[in-house]
Amino acid sequence: MKTLAAQLITPEDLLIHWQGHRALTRRVIELFPEKDFFEFSIGGMRTFSKLVDELLGIAVPGLKGIVTKETAPFTEGAEKLIFKAQYLEKWDQATEEINQYWQQLSIEDFNETFNLFGQYEFPVIQNILYFVDNEVHHRGQGYVYLRALGIDPPFFWER
Amino acid sequence: MKTLAAQLITPEDLLIHWQGHRALTRRVIELFPEKDFFEFSIGGMRTFSKLVDELLGIAVPGLKGIVTKETAPFTEGAEKLIFKAQYLEKWDQATEEINQYWQQLSIEDFNETFNLFGQYEFPVIQNILYFVDNEVHHRGQGYVYLRALGIDPPFFWER
Repeated sequence: MKTLAAQLITPEDLLIHWQGHRALTRRVIELFPEKDFFEFSIGGMRTFSKLVDELLGIAVPGLKGIVTKETAPFTEGAEKLIFKAQYLEKWDQATEEINQYWQQLSIEDFNETFNLFGQYEFPVIQNILYFVDNEVHHRGQGYVYLRALGIDPPFFWER
Repeated sequence: MKTLAAQLITPEDLLIHWQGHRALTRRVIELFPEKDFFEFSIGGMRTFSKLVDELLGIAVPGLKGIVTKETAPFTEGAEKLIFKAQYLEKWDQATEEINQYWQQLSIEDFNETFNLFGQYEFPVIQNILYFVDNEVHHRGQGYVYLRALGIDPPFFWER
């Protein structure tokens, strides 16, 4: 039997990677003028607040589902937050909850198949990479919104 | 000594993940009208062809550097491609080259530190995650360009 001492990436480092991205997204939220966060968009796309509703609807509920094996359906924006400060507060709560749920995952769990939100049946690692990729994707769109508003976004490599 | 039979993600699956993203980016390039690929931008940002220059300048040269341990400096757009078809051809060549270089990486290599482009001294796994994240980031910007041009981008989960 082949045994492996090395890991491509450890759970600890993948969490740091995800939370680094989340710290950058938080900075992008902060940079939006209050009004534009809720109203500005390009080409009929969602506002950045709506995109953040999606990110918040995925991160903790998705990870919680993986850990508890509950397949609650996806929901977003149910709390109808109306101030940026509320989003930032909820973002920070999510940061803590992600850290807590993460501790309950073993390496083996990442290869288990899970039916995320009762809808996406994939190995857990793919679900988690999707959380990160989807956030990077939408944050990239937020960068264009900021540029269009004449605001310099943070450097992409700042975490 | 603790030995681990399980991997969070295997090298094979990480390659599939990266190439899946690259296949989606290729579709985004295809969707741009020829003229807009080279000329359209928002808020003083780079055109999508310039962003693709960067992606091409990173992927194969970066991975080649990691495999050969050569730290050549970063360059982009040196070939001055002027047709979208040239970009697509170069994209497909890169797909093959990435597959070939990837075979030369062992799991242990991902934890080695490498001074990417003689400038970014990080573990190889972080460099590679950066390649993917940076592509997702810029492709997300391409989605906004397409929407602003009245063109529906592909679904994000299509790979």
